[in-house]
Amino acid sequence: MLSKKSLLDIESLDLEDIKLILSNTDSFLEISKREVKKVPTLRGKTVFNLFFEVSTRTKTSFEIAAKRLSADIINFSAANSSIKKGESVVDTLKTILSMKVDLIVIRHSDSGTARMIDGFVNVPVINAGDGKHQHPTQALLDLYTIKKRFGDFKGLKVAIVGDFIDSRVARSDISLFEKMGMDITIVSPAMFLPEDFSELKVRYQIDDVIEDCDILYMLRMQFERQDRKFYPSIMEYKRFLGLDMGRLKRMRPGSIVMHPGPVNRGVEISDEVMDVGGKLAERIVIEEQVTYGLAVRMAILYLILG
Amino acid sequence: MLSKKSLLDIESLDLEDIKLILSNTDSFLEISKREVKKVPTLRGKTVFNLFFEVSTRTKTSFEIAAKRLSADIINFSAANSSIKKGESVVDTLKTILSMKVDLIVIRHSDSGTARMIDGFVNVPVINAGDGKHQHPTQALLDLYTIKKRFGDFKGLKVAIVGDFIDSRVARSDISLFEKMGMDITIVSPAMFLPEDFSELKVRYQIDDVIEDCDILYMLRMQFERQDRKFYPSIMEYKRFLGLDMGRLKRMRPGSIVMHPGPVNRGVEISDEVMDVGGKLAERIVIEEQVTYGLAVRMAILYLILG
Amino acid sequence: MLSKKSLLDIESLDLEDIKLILSNTDSFLEISKREVKKVPTLRGKTVFNLFFEVSTRTKTSFEIAAKRLSADIINFSAANSSIKKGESVVDTLKTILSMKVDLIVIRHSDSGTARMIDGFVNVPVINAGDGKHQHPTQALLDLYTIKKRFGDFKGLKVAIVGDFIDSRVARSDISLFEKMGMDITIVSPAMFLPEDFSELKVRYQIDDVIEDCDILYMLRMQFERQDRKFYPSIMEYKRFLGLDMGRLKRMRPGSIVMHPGPVNRGVEISDEVMDVGGKLAERIVIEEQVTYGLAVRMAILYLILG
Repeated sequence: MLSKKSLLDIESLDLEDIKLILSNTDSFLEISKREVKKVPTLRGKTVFNLFFEVSTRTKTSFEIAAKRLSADIINFSAANSSIKKGESVVDTLKTILSMKVDLIVIRHSDSGTARMIDGFVNVPVINAGDGKHQHPTQALLDLYTIKKRFGDFKGLKVAIVGDFIDSRVARSDISLFEKMGMDITIVSPAMFLPEDFSELKVRYQIDDVIEDCDILYMLRMQFERQDRKFYPSIMEYKRFLGLDMGRLKRMRPGSIVMHPGPVNRGVEISDEVMDVGGKLAERIVIEEQVTYGLAVRMAILYLILG
Repeated sequence: MLSKKSLLDIESLDLEDIKLILSNTDSFLEISKREVKKVPTLRGKTVFNLFFEVSTRTKTSFEIAAKRLSADIINFSAANSSIKKGESVVDTLKTILSMKVDLIVIRHSDSGTARMIDGFVNVPVINAGDGKHQHPTQALLDLYTIKKRFGDFKGLKVAIVGDFIDSRVARSDISLFEKMGMDITIVSPAMFLPEDFSELKVRYQIDDVIEDCDILYMLRMQFERQDRKFYPSIMEYKRFLGLDMGRLKRMRPGSIVMHPGPVNRGVEISDEVMDVGGKLAERIVIEEQVTYGLAVRMAILYLILG
Repeated sequence: MLSKKSLLDIESLDLEDIKLILSNTDSFLEISKREVKKVPTLRGKTVFNLFFEVSTRTKTSFEIAAKRLSADIINFSAANSSIKKGESVVDTLKTILSMKVDLIVIRHSDSGTARMIDGFVNVPVINAGDGKHQHPTQALLDLYTIKKRFGDFKGLKVAIVGDFIDSRVARSDISLFEKMGMDITIVSPAMFLPEDFSELKVRYQIDDVIEDCDILYMLRMQFERQDRKFYPSIMEYKRFLGLDMGRLKRMRPGSIVMHPGPVNRGVEISDEVMDVGGKLAERIVIEEQVTYGLAVRMAILYLILG
């Protein structure tokens, strides 16, 4: 069992929780490789997938995770709901809870929504991304991906590259990677850096770190979330922050490239890198992240509800 | 078993049917409290959730009810369908029936659609709301909520407050409450009263009934259904028909407040009443209605298909 | 087992495959008539329903087919997806595959998408319609419908009537019916005929074939797929290509009328024909096509995954 009823952010996980999630993920990963990819663990439990923002991978990942554990899952998208009739989120939640669901997975565009809701309901809540704040299951799957490649975390050099202003992934990753004793460098122009990142080690160009990191974590340029103007141009972004073949080749042996997906091809990562074959392809672990993400979510659902 | 194959309106239920539904609801309510909230009763049955109108609570309630009975449920929303390609509702139904589904739950914005469809198909149909006409499962869950609070129905004083013109909930409730021998008062200005309600006991302001009813049933102001102008203003609506803290306090000991949801906060019920704590909170049974609604729908699915 | 891992088009099926699908359909059709319409055959398998185009019958048919085989099915509609965030189809697929799904059912508005995807992934792909190209499960259910009525195929006279330019149904049917030795006549004005149909037997009006065919296959007028102007007018279309009561009565004893659905009532088939009763109703097999379609898809899922 985890130390808290809900999974809202990385801060509230202690080291025991993290270890428990990682070790349980090993078992659930094994299930995804079986002929019959299903266990009766959560039969008769109802999981509510409450997504107020568009999502493919996270929503689907939770849906498949719940189904492989034999839970019933109810998908709820804001677009087809009474939210349109002007119902408040809190009243929607009261309704859902009155149907005796066992767990709520929530994604919302406002920071703090998951915690607000958790204070309000007596069933567990999993934060599947809230505004610019946190996306803890993403950070945990990132950590598990790193564990599978490197075995341990202590002293690993990770460079996180891109736009930090709107990035809940970056916030959760930094928090978790620090907890595990990793050595973090932020690569971002000043205009993409929120003030509270000033205590971190900062570089301004990807070339400053490309030869000296174990993990290159490329953030997604969040076009859909910004009303501000784009860092001078996509051309400039690629030149100072993008990963192309030349840079991929300069990376250390054994180093890896991560991305939370979906990738903006030709912006943060070039087409050539996305489709690279042969030895260099082993560096790109984006698909492994998705595979492990499913197993991590099965582990979390199990640890919370099982 | 019910006396008819389908549940289309309250009129066609006889007293035996109603008693059967209420007593079976007791058993299904108990299942929602178990650790494993699932029974194999309807395994291998296919329920078709055919919603031509936006809905959260009713659609989800039927979906969870079907899943907890182990039925397969197919959700169909008009938005993503061949209805866009110009297919007629009848042809859509023929298609669905040809796939050998066992039961159709239908919501449609036109009055009479459920009955029209029932005449046409040979599987049972449950009316989940048709235009201004009927919403029988809502009335049955309302009745069950009353039973849980009061034990019996005979002579209970119920005041139904609000806009009756577009209200299928009101039509179904009045019909069912009369059947059970309850004493009904309508509270509504003349402009909100259809002609066929003229035989009922009518009052014009909530203050006329607030101290003298066991059940205060607040209707939803259906903004989305009206093209006509709003009763002079929201201010006037609240003044003559709304429930605020002052009025809540004036209600009899043991009396309750019901609402079919979703509530327009600040219109028919004030924020203070919605979020009231302590002793007075026991009067607000809106969440109980949702909980019982799920169990009532399980009972109905079972009685029709089991 | 089928000779290929995927079902992409009719061309790549050999006669053994077709016989296997038809004979297995017999068994699965039987399941749809049982009280408990469910078998555990594909328990623990995950089927991904990837629909980039609006669809009722095909998507629902695959969904019910998968559920009756106890597979888990994930519905994915382009409207609510990361496709909106600009993710490429290939990257979406990589994501889906990384979650270890077992089979992808795909519908897409671009011809060739199913084959492109199949070359790319290592799980089986079923083409549920790609642009103007192919719709093989439709052709197989059409064939099964014919088998149930006529027992054999050799020498049966089939007339296919309507707009061939955008019709993937026509392409798949012609290919399959030719394989089975049927005698095909195309009924279409020159403006509706793609060049590669020139080797086929062509007539220009429905009256040229109405008295001399065993199977009259009416194509759907695809209003939604065309930007070009409509064949002079709907009036003209009905006059030269439409099926009305007069024509229905002139058909041979034992002959049948097929349509892939949804029908444009009053265009390719008149209201009177759609709603005809009595002896003549036996000629219209459109609903049988849907029933058999479900069983054909169960058979195909089983043969590919079982």
